[in-house]
Amino acid sequence: VMQADAVVLLGAEIVDFPSTWVKPGAAVIRCTPTLESGSVKCIVIVLEITCRGHPGILLGRVLFISRAQTPKSVDQLAEEVGLLPEELEAYGRSKAKVRLSLLDRLHEQPDGKYVLVAGITPTPLGEGKSTVTIGLVQALTAHLKLNSFACLRQPSQGPTFGVKGGAAGGGYAQVIPMEEFNLHLTGDIHAITASNNLVAAAIDARMLHEATQSDKGLYNRLVPSVNGVRQFSPIQISRLRRLGINKTDPASLTPQEVSTFVRLDLDPSKITWQRVVDTNDRFLRKITVGQASTEKGQIRETGFDIAVASEIMAILALADGLEDMKRRLARMVVGTSRCGQPVTAEDLGVSGALAVLMKDAIKPTLMQTLEGTPVFVHAGPFANIAHGNSSVLADKLALKLVGRDGFVVTEAGFGADIGMEKFFNIKCRASGLRPDAVVLVATVRALKMHGGGPNVSAGAPLPREYIDENLSLVAGGCRSNLRKQIQIAHLFGVPVVVALNVFKTDTQAEIDLVCQIAKECGASDAVPCHHWAQGGRGSLDLARAVNEAASRPGNFQFLYDIEMPITEKIRTIAQKVYGADDIELSPEAKDKIDYYNKQGYGSLPICMAKTHLSLSHMPDKKGVPTGFVLPIREVRASVGAGFIYPLVGTMSTMPGLPTRPCFYDIDLDPVTEEITGLF
Amino acid sequence: VMQADAVVLLGAEIVDFPSTWVKPGAAVIRCTPTLESGSVKCIVIVLEITCRGHPGILLGRVLFISRAQTPKSVDQLAEEVGLLPEELEAYGRSKAKVRLSLLDRLHEQPDGKYVLVAGITPTPLGEGKSTVTIGLVQALTAHLKLNSFACLRQPSQGPTFGVKGGAAGGGYAQVIPMEEFNLHLTGDIHAITASNNLVAAAIDARMLHEATQSDKGLYNRLVPSVNGVRQFSPIQISRLRRLGINKTDPASLTPQEVSTFVRLDLDPSKITWQRVVDTNDRFLRKITVGQASTEKGQIRETGFDIAVASEIMAILALADGLEDMKRRLARMVVGTSRCGQPVTAEDLGVSGALAVLMKDAIKPTLMQTLEGTPVFVHAGPFANIAHGNSSVLADKLALKLVGRDGFVVTEAGFGADIGMEKFFNIKCRASGLRPDAVVLVATVRALKMHGGGPNVSAGAPLPREYIDENLSLVAGGCRSNLRKQIQIAHLFGVPVVVALNVFKTDTQAEIDLVCQIAKECGASDAVPCHHWAQGGRGSLDLARAVNEAASRPGNFQFLYDIEMPITEKIRTIAQKVYGADDIELSPEAKDKIDYYNKQGYGSLPICMAKTHLSLSHMPDKKGVPTGFVLPIREVRASVGAGFIYPLVGTMSTMPGLPTRPCFYDIDLDPVTEEITGLF
Repeated sequence: VMQADAVVLLGAEIVDFPSTWVKPGAAVIRCTPTLESGSVKCIVIVLEITCRGHPGILLGRVLFISRAQTPKSVDQLAEEVGLLPEELEAYGRSKAKVRLSLLDRLHEQPDGKYVLVAGITPTPLGEGKSTVTIGLVQALTAHLKLNSFACLRQPSQGPTFGVKGGAAGGGYAQVIPMEEFNLHLTGDIHAITASNNLVAAAIDARMLHEATQSDKGLYNRLVPSVNGVRQFSPIQISRLRRLGINKTDPASLTPQEVSTFVRLDLDPSKITWQRVVDTNDRFLRKITVGQASTEKGQIRETGFDIAVASEIMAILALADGLEDMKRRLARMVVGTSRCGQPVTAEDLGVSGALAVLMKDAIKPTLMQTLEGTPVFVHAGPFANIAHGNSSVLADKLALKLVGRDGFVVTEAGFGADIGMEKFFNIKCRASGLRPDAVVLVATVRALKMHGGGPNVSAGAPLPREYIDENLSLVAGGCRSNLRKQIQIAHLFGVPVVVALNVFKTDTQAEIDLVCQIAKECGASDAVPCHHWAQGGRGSLDLARAVNEAASRPGNFQFLYDIEMPITEKIRTIAQKVYGADDIELSPEAKDKIDYYNKQGYGSLPICMAKTHLSLSHMPDKKGVPTGFVLPIREVRASVGAGFIYPLVGTMSTMPGLPTRPCFYDIDLDPVTEEITGLF
Repeated sequence: VMQADAVVLLGAEIVDFPSTWVKPGAAVIRCTPTLESGSVKCIVIVLEITCRGHPGILLGRVLFISRAQTPKSVDQLAEEVGLLPEELEAYGRSKAKVRLSLLDRLHEQPDGKYVLVAGITPTPLGEGKSTVTIGLVQALTAHLKLNSFACLRQPSQGPTFGVKGGAAGGGYAQVIPMEEFNLHLTGDIHAITASNNLVAAAIDARMLHEATQSDKGLYNRLVPSVNGVRQFSPIQISRLRRLGINKTDPASLTPQEVSTFVRLDLDPSKITWQRVVDTNDRFLRKITVGQASTEKGQIRETGFDIAVASEIMAILALADGLEDMKRRLARMVVGTSRCGQPVTAEDLGVSGALAVLMKDAIKPTLMQTLEGTPVFVHAGPFANIAHGNSSVLADKLALKLVGRDGFVVTEAGFGADIGMEKFFNIKCRASGLRPDAVVLVATVRALKMHGGGPNVSAGAPLPREYIDENLSLVAGGCRSNLRKQIQIAHLFGVPVVVALNVFKTDTQAEIDLVCQIAKECGASDAVPCHHWAQGGRGSLDLARAVNEAASRPGNFQFLYDIEMPITEKIRTIAQKVYGADDIELSPEAKDKIDYYNKQGYGSLPICMAKTHLSLSHMPDKKGVPTGFVLPIREVRASVGAGFIYPLVGTMSTMPGLPTRPCFYDIDLDPVTEEITGLF
């Protein structure tokens, strides 16, 4: 169920309506007929229903808007944005992968303006960053006539079937066809899952084979005689070089060299690689594997993460091409040998296969908004436990396609303290791109929560404070969390436009108050947005404000020097961004940092895994928490992706399913092939 | 490395050759230039190399043949086979999903001839059923000018990256582009994995929630009040009906009814649903899940199967449309309640979501052979531990497309005792289709093994007996395994054509002997095939023989009456097909059969999980083993797919990785995007 129920209901009677959509006992009382929205006319079926006297909102409403608009063919869309037919690989009629050769062709083309959409600390319901992103590009393109592109992330099936639902936006600001966007899309996350789990299988199988074979036995199997010829594969030559063995004839290795070569000698207690599934499967958080008799007692504890938290997803997001992706995949560290050496995917012999599995995933997928604006979908969400930004390649391709005066609007997950901080310190460092403006999304609902309103939780009815006007709660939220999030963006020297995502229960006084305080707090501008109900037309003020802010000369800077010690970088983020007094490292975290420093990973940026529900590590501390020390429980290294990954407090890298997951309402009509219940 | 090295090497010097393909120390000594093969001209680069004095065969050879031929666009292919543009969903340029609406449009069209390709008991190297299938359709189409279609199964990534390699065929009889065929294809197996694991996550999460909540707490969460309205979802109404509670108002249930409704009360020791990955991950064969503190001690032992062994794969193969698939998904039994009732996917509330996840996977994928013959790729392999046949829908669509005089050649996995038996007793029963002929693939190599030759194993050099002429071993294999496999096909009343897949080491005397004995054993015909070296032209004799055999009136019959008791059906297969004296049920197997009988599953057909390396359950017993009793260790029920699934002996449903998996040689050139080492 979407929260933004502020759709303009024009009061027309409904005539023709598929009865399967109406729940037992429901009666349609109002609906909107045709509504012009931006550049397209949509046949709109937005309903309010009554059910046994209780007013309600039909669950299928959002889907109707999406389905009422037929997407233009992806061939036509591609032609409109300047792609050549040979640069396109269609997947069905409404989505296509775009070949990276485009970057070479448009090498000379100047980049467009680069806008990041971030948010204040959200309620568990989400505050509409995706809808703001889509509304903004719709307004820029259809109304201001500026080329623009949205860069979104592919949704994870975890939330889609779990608690939160899909991520296509909503109302008149969504990606269509939303069903394809929310399901398998073009298979990128599946490719990541397959790649990640091939590495995992290789790790355990290798440990078993090393445990049960002699050096000679291993060598004979690893470098077999084929048709009388015995030679190293290229991937084995790379390993030999890293080991300092500059030989190519397998017969010439000394027994000691053979032993060094064949034994990765992984320490089972120091394997950092986890398996993944793109499902909220909480029972896989901690498991014991290898319990069948065929594995000869080599049992060990390990776990699964949600697929989008895989290091391979971060590599997909940060790589700048096939060659870079392949190098990053090869240097991923999966664990440590018993004598303390890092063991890589290349050591396992699996990195070439990973590149092969990921060769299509690296191409961004082209789709469109409800108003026909182009969208790249690439990389994945979960900015709390992962990097969680859209891809460098999608942004770069889009910046070339929109050209000098155009706009690329890309989205960072959750609050500015999480997604935006990673966007600047990790993604911009990797890409070399510099943003021209930040759009900070706020809602009256979230501001009231930060101002001291009662708890907001998914599934439970909203308390009255969130439905009735309450200026003091709004002001409290603006002067705490909103002000702090603006300040965080200013740490990086980037202008901020506050976008207030308006709900139907917001009063004019509340809206005015938010915009006024936001400007007092240093925002370049602050405007209400009505994209959910009105599409691009409802985001016109935002588009003008963004165009204005992005036209000023930039003053971008990173938050920390990359050469600072790991601990100092973590402390800088904790103090300057989260507002912590200090950090507290667990003994394990300290040891890991020492080890990573010794291995030469000290100059990697930091990717914090922290709750998105508070600036602090305590989800229930709203507003601007102070007087806390940030506990760093564990530190991992994603050497291929290129960051150090501290886990704050009790963050879990695998969500769970609630008692009644979203999937209860999801269904398929086998005759019309229409999907119900997917939002 | 392919075994069929009998490529005609014309002796031309090579001129232009990508050096990355040649291993260090190798020199090209011969290659074939342009060779006309069937209806297309291929630029052929088939190489024999010498490496430090040892003659060898270049590993990349097969791929060169595949890549030298540019596939026609799938749009053109679709037009040639009579598809309308709106019936096609392209995935890139060379593969497309075909919409099932085609079946309605061609409803009146008579079916073509239906030919099954099966084999004798294979060596671990495989005997070339896929190449025979492809060679046959190439010969029928290009040379006999008969419309024809091959129906193949999508390869599993397990073997592709494990021991066996890809499954696109080989030489001049393969599916192109073989890289796309062997990797993600159109994502069907990924969709199955996602669906299967959503069910698994739902099972464990539900058990946790039931263990930690009161009836009332569960009810409030399962049937929440949304905007003041409280109602059951359609999937919950279905469960209520099955429980005999014919109420629709949540307020009207008695406390007892609430308890019955909210508690699936799954017995953790009787959960039959496993998780899956499409990776050979042996350490997941037996695992303990739920060990994180968040799961509150609800640990249990379970395991992962290879994805293609999922019941959902069998459903994909056996469903005759979206509606049938949805019904089958809903009735899948995942375990048993503490009071002995089966618990289904619908009880978990997840069956609608499964249908949504599988809605595209149900459409077969159209590809082509090297000679441009159409191919449907659908469903998956592993006829030993799964059903392992291509899909009913692909066969049905193809039979309509080829029309009355055309041919559909579909493939059953492994020996006729495994894949073919399941094809007849399960797939033909589900589809109502009746085959017109069986092609039984044999090789001199496998026949020699059955005649008493030494052990054949992957990775080890072939013993001399397999390279030098040995008529007595050949005769022994023909009079044992080949004769028996022909007899098995005759049990079903279908004529058999023996296709001898010729290798370059086979002598004319050996070839003649096989064909002579095969006919003595009752084969309608027996012919040598040279499709690997010559494409369709090399299978012309086979095409004529099949055309002749299939034109005779059929006399098809099932092996057993579906209403026979489960134990009797198992015994019938064991005795008549495998040649066992009897079966021996473990106490667990007996209990399970009693339970399934009680639950009304007694009249399902049988899907045996048995080694493919022997007619018996003992992989090292070649020829025709006798005097054995078949041990049935365990019996499962795949109620959605519609079969009872006995596990024979020590069959594992999850393969493992060897010391040096295929992935060691697989690599991607990041500039040309060419893949090496994938076969």
